[in-house]
Amino acid sequence: MQEKLSLMIPGPTPVPESVLKALGQHPIGHRSGEFQDIVRRTTAQLQWLHQTEGDVLTITGSGTAAMEAGIINTLSRGDKVLCGENGKFGERWVKVAKAYGINVEVLKTEWGQPLNPEEFRKVLEGDKKKEIKAVIITHSETSTGVLNDLQTISKYVRAHGQAITIADCVTSLGACDVPMDNWGIDVIASGSQKGYMMPPGLGFVAMSNRAWEAQQKSDLPKFYLDLSQYKKAASKNSNPFTPAVNLYFSLEAALNMMQAEGLTSIFKRHHRHRAATQAGMKAIGLPIFSAEGHGSPAITAVAPKTIDAEQLRKEVKDKFDILLAGGQDHLKGKVFRIGHLGFVNDRDVLTAVSAIEATLQSLGLDNGQIGQGLKAASEILTAR
Amino acid sequence: MQEKLSLMIPGPTPVPESVLKALGQHPIGHRSGEFQDIVRRTTAQLQWLHQTEGDVLTITGSGTAAMEAGIINTLSRGDKVLCGENGKFGERWVKVAKAYGINVEVLKTEWGQPLNPEEFRKVLEGDKKKEIKAVIITHSETSTGVLNDLQTISKYVRAHGQAITIADCVTSLGACDVPMDNWGIDVIASGSQKGYMMPPGLGFVAMSNRAWEAQQKSDLPKFYLDLSQYKKAASKNSNPFTPAVNLYFSLEAALNMMQAEGLTSIFKRHHRHRAATQAGMKAIGLPIFSAEGHGSPAITAVAPKTIDAEQLRKEVKDKFDILLAGGQDHLKGKVFRIGHLGFVNDRDVLTAVSAIEATLQSLGLDNGQIGQGLKAASEILTAR
Repeated sequence: MQEKLSLMIPGPTPVPESVLKALGQHPIGHRSGEFQDIVRRTTAQLQWLHQTEGDVLTITGSGTAAMEAGIINTLSRGDKVLCGENGKFGERWVKVAKAYGINVEVLKTEWGQPLNPEEFRKVLEGDKKKEIKAVIITHSETSTGVLNDLQTISKYVRAHGQAITIADCVTSLGACDVPMDNWGIDVIASGSQKGYMMPPGLGFVAMSNRAWEAQQKSDLPKFYLDLSQYKKAASKNSNPFTPAVNLYFSLEAALNMMQAEGLTSIFKRHHRHRAATQAGMKAIGLPIFSAEGHGSPAITAVAPKTIDAEQLRKEVKDKFDILLAGGQDHLKGKVFRIGHLGFVNDRDVLTAVSAIEATLQSLGLDNGQIGQGLKAASEILTAR
Repeated sequence: MQEKLSLMIPGPTPVPESVLKALGQHPIGHRSGEFQDIVRRTTAQLQWLHQTEGDVLTITGSGTAAMEAGIINTLSRGDKVLCGENGKFGERWVKVAKAYGINVEVLKTEWGQPLNPEEFRKVLEGDKKKEIKAVIITHSETSTGVLNDLQTISKYVRAHGQAITIADCVTSLGACDVPMDNWGIDVIASGSQKGYMMPPGLGFVAMSNRAWEAQQKSDLPKFYLDLSQYKKAASKNSNPFTPAVNLYFSLEAALNMMQAEGLTSIFKRHHRHRAATQAGMKAIGLPIFSAEGHGSPAITAVAPKTIDAEQLRKEVKDKFDILLAGGQDHLKGKVFRIGHLGFVNDRDVLTAVSAIEATLQSLGLDNGQIGQGLKAASEILTAR
């Protein structure tokens, strides 16, 4: 039904009306005092979200632009880095690093499995000459619904003493605890259309003091993504280039809502939705793709055995106007993904589980378990 | 007065209500068929605006990102280029090129004067070894209100036979005729918050076949701004990275309005506004900063002699809620700039001239000419 589509994909995620209203205001001059006030306020809010006292810079661009900025501002041609790869986004950061002539050692695990922190520990401990300049990893791997153990890996990076941790937190920030300073993460990249509950178009890069020290030595060419220009402008609550003014309006509205809810409540909500989604799917015989205990709080990948995942996804969209995400690359047709990131409430999760059940029934795939998904999900959602 | 500010700066420019309404809609999935339809339609509209049959690619980013993409996708480290510089944006492209190790020969003229096409001709004709790979110029130099002679310079580049023309048309596209194919321009960069009548956040890069040939040889590192990825995605009406979906909604709404008005009418309107603004300022004794006959149809820089330009600008804003632009760098306090680009009607121009006159009067600077600005502007605006 027209205008009734419910987004349950990992991005763009649903956007609250107040955020859309803020977006649709007349733009103001990006060099005006009024706009500088917005930059000042949102910067403080972004620090709150990242749990950092360091810089958080806003770029007009996607999460990929933010992640690329994090990499190319802290590294130089020929630098050795360790890159974790257990999904499409891990692959992407390997490509970015290689595009700039960085010497990448890839630590892979199978898609659906988490990265193994012990492998990182071994390689880092074996690096007696301290040649490794950075460890690049994806916290929540959106393509597989796996949450990697960023806390432990960044602890090993700190023990190494020289390398920095560069983390893609695009679908973890605002979904689960990412205490940047406490965990000692040096670069965090994220994007607006995820936990931020706003439309795509802004990327964010948080930088620790160690990241800025690395930036001093970086020799990779850049201009639009040169973070030193953003830092200089940020000291005047400004931007080096014309920013997406209207997206800043919606950023402030969304961060206001997040602050009103509070980080603890936000994280609990996402954990509850992960648990309810997983329980609902398992109860109707649909296996979870990510390894047990390593599911992302942002997205659940489901790997049905008796039906093509794309067919199920299409039916759910056509009949119930719920957009689920498909599998990427070799997972196309093998998994579908339920996004429960950002502006998602218990009703949305209950509805998604119910609609998937109803669709299986309509396709004649009732194995006697239809209704059990709702029951399992509701038990978790209504627990006191 | 709150919410009454009128933007007469060179960007962000005023945005029509229908464009804001389109912006404030709920986002849709960027990999959906519905979104692919928007990409397909806006791409055709962008070709219409650029008067080209070549590719026009949309990037989430500023005009600077688009211009940087144009440069780094067609050139290699050590390549020799000619860069025209007669204002802040000319300076910027020199910086971008140098940041990537490109060998830049700068052809300068004083700020306020146009680039001299004959200097380009001489250098290009003298390049017997055909070492010059590109000529990089700014069509409408926003910092000074000068329109450079892109048509003649690109003709000389074509006569050279090897070099390509890379043009910053950020404030000329949608304000005056830029027939890309007819003039033989190879790369045109622009940004959404200008003639497009929409908020900032999208950049556009148009590429000729010759530009794509150059792209094949380019060895500069890039990822987010790698246009080959955009071209590949565009063949499926898609984007390589998550685009600013809501800005695409407003892009289509704005281009619909532009097509309804028609290119000829749009250009006539901007030429009329340039003429009326210049005549109004001259009539009250305020000199135009750009050389006679070389004013931009997008923006008029004015260099008052008897008052600090920043003071005048502040008074006009405080009293009449009209935001004019100040001078940049060494022109700060020496010029103010009246933007008449995009969604600007005759009333806006009449109002700006009148408000400047009234402000001079209120400051006790009536030299007997107050009222003459209105008269001169209205003669042009109401001519049949």
